[in-house]
Amino acid sequence: MNDDLPAREAIFGAQHDRIFDRLTGLDPDLATYIRDFAYDTVYERPGLDLKTKELLACTLLLSLGSPDELRTHLRGAMRAGATEQEVRETLLFAAPFVGFPRVVAAFAQLRALLHPRPGS
Amino acid sequence: MNDDLPAREAIFGAQHDRIFDRLTGLDPDLATYIRDFAYDTVYERPGLDLKTKELLACTLLLSLGSPDELRTHLRGAMRAGATEQEVRETLLFAAPFVGFPRVVAAFAQLRALLHPRPGS
Amino acid sequence: MNDDLPAREAIFGAQHDRIFDRLTGLDPDLATYIRDFAYDTVYERPGLDLKTKELLACTLLLSLGSPDELRTHLRGAMRAGATEQEVRETLLFAAPFVGFPRVVAAFAQLRALLHPRPGS
Amino acid sequence: MNDDLPAREAIFGAQHDRIFDRLTGLDPDLATYIRDFAYDTVYERPGLDLKTKELLACTLLLSLGSPDELRTHLRGAMRAGATEQEVRETLLFAAPFVGFPRVVAAFAQLRALLHPRPGS
Amino acid sequence: MNDDLPAREAIFGAQHDRIFDRLTGLDPDLATYIRDFAYDTVYERPGLDLKTKELLACTLLLSLGSPDELRTHLRGAMRAGATEQEVRETLLFAAPFVGFPRVVAAFAQLRALLHPRPGS
Amino acid sequence: MNDDLPAREAIFGAQHDRIFDRLTGLDPDLATYIRDFAYDTVYERPGLDLKTKELLACTLLLSLGSPDELRTHLRGAMRAGATEQEVRETLLFAAPFVGFPRVVAAFAQLRALLHPRPGS
Repeated sequence: MNDDLPAREAIFGAQHDRIFDRLTGLDPDLATYIRDFAYDTVYERPGLDLKTKELLACTLLLSLGSPDELRTHLRGAMRAGATEQEVRETLLFAAPFVGFPRVVAAFAQLRALLHPRPGS
Repeated sequence: MNDDLPAREAIFGAQHDRIFDRLTGLDPDLATYIRDFAYDTVYERPGLDLKTKELLACTLLLSLGSPDELRTHLRGAMRAGATEQEVRETLLFAAPFVGFPRVVAAFAQLRALLHPRPGS
Repeated sequence: MNDDLPAREAIFGAQHDRIFDRLTGLDPDLATYIRDFAYDTVYERPGLDLKTKELLACTLLLSLGSPDELRTHLRGAMRAGATEQEVRETLLFAAPFVGFPRVVAAFAQLRALLHPRPGS
Repeated sequence: MNDDLPAREAIFGAQHDRIFDRLTGLDPDLATYIRDFAYDTVYERPGLDLKTKELLACTLLLSLGSPDELRTHLRGAMRAGATEQEVRETLLFAAPFVGFPRVVAAFAQLRALLHPRPGS
Repeated sequence: MNDDLPAREAIFGAQHDRIFDRLTGLDPDLATYIRDFAYDTVYERPGLDLKTKELLACTLLLSLGSPDELRTHLRGAMRAGATEQEVRETLLFAAPFVGFPRVVAAFAQLRALLHPRPGS
Repeated sequence: MNDDLPAREAIFGAQHDRIFDRLTGLDPDLATYIRDFAYDTVYERPGLDLKTKELLACTLLLSLGSPDELRTHLRGAMRAGATEQEVRETLLFAAPFVGFPRVVAAFAQLRALLHPRPGS
């Protein structure tokens, strides 16, 4: 991980342009707000390292029940230096707070990321 | 912070017994489950340090909208070694994911913790 | 419990008129919809007994995080024949599904109902 | 849009019967409640025009995270006279309140409605 | 239903091992917590019969919007002795509390369970 | 309402400075993000009039269950030109989508706004 990269490049890696192209295809202003406010403003704040931020992002998306965005940030957490074990600990930690169904759904996204099946 | 302490003693400090007495007063089995499962099982897992766990807890409680528990874990995060700035960063980080109203409510808890008013 | 009573009279008892007067004071049409649709249509359906319905209501309100309505239906469950223990079991049962914070908040309502403090 | 039509015919158009046939297939009483209470009672209230109601419906379904119903009401909003731009503004407006993940999911439904792919 | 069986065997029946194998495949500790805490501790508590517990579980999962787990427990409720009509009543009962979209989604899971389509 | 005013001045009126001073007291960067992104960027977008935006805001805050912010925007909706009746219609409209408890809580905020009690 290169600390001089914008956070969004560090966590999305080779998927960066595809992710923002998809958002632009949904709505150009939406893509701009996500890039400028969520990433280039909030994610770029100092005070927490990128790995911690990505673990917080996974927790927030687990809690919301947003499977696609969760998978993106599970990958992002590992790109930002989290080990698979740290990601697993983060998901397990949520169970007493939000219950098992959200945690099971989150681990299903992690499995899909770690063991992609052909065609899915 | 003494790493040999159970996590619940490290994060609740002098409030520990009062917190569990209150839970026992609500329901003794509930108190047992929270102590044995949430704290002595899940919180004691290795792999993430206690400060990171408490920042995740604050994020989960911000997302749930649970003000009392959030205040307890904002204090816990600082007992576990998080600076006030790290706590603020954690709360701000949630804004793009869950919106401003939950974040404003979380900062109101932080302010109440940092600047308690007489009688409240 | 008199099975010939409307469900809303059975579960609200002496509070019935006060509860609907308060709703009418909020909005008369809202009060009408709650009375005619929620109570006189949905609650009056056969197939589940009133005690089971009230335990389901407590579960739904625990999950929503609606403390005032929850307290009303905790009382309603006991008026419909649920023992204190059955109510406690219902609240505890939710913990693995929605996590502890919602359950703790629900037990705080139960305690306030069972042990009202002067002035609260 | 013909103001003499029931709101549900105005917003569902040619899909009206298919939508209610599907609901009846799920549960006949559920279909009756949705038709009689949600549509023929609440939607028929005066005071807000149908376009505004459909934009509110889209906002509520975005917030709930109900993709299928959201798509139905995105189409309904446009049948009720909302331009594509007004629908986009409605979805973007939600971002500061509920965060980006719900808004991204909503725009994915809008895109699927505007650019249906063969077989989906 | 054999009362000597663990609740999880009574409600999952022939799917029991497949369900826990899947959870173990997601994360072995997650599977252990769900088995030991959610099922062998909370589900085994006396005070409510298994049918009532499963109806509560369906209500919680309807409220959470967790379709896969809901389908599992709709089946579990019927294995625990609930009639199809009691399950339908349970789902309908939630409408005034959490609104129609969650209830429609729950009935879609019930239909899929009662009328599975080839290949789905 | 003066269309040349920033939306936040039009909807907050004489409370504007107090509202932002409170947010700054919670966290200066939070206040900046809410002012610059939520208000001066998203609220200033053309395409929907301010009254419609405020009705959407009330709907979002009703759905989130954020009572303080809801009261602020109920007042804002009326400042932006919504009649009391339009606000009531907006709150009632949410009932079939999110259920009665959230709507009752919203009307309690409306009543507190319309009929403030001394000391509250």
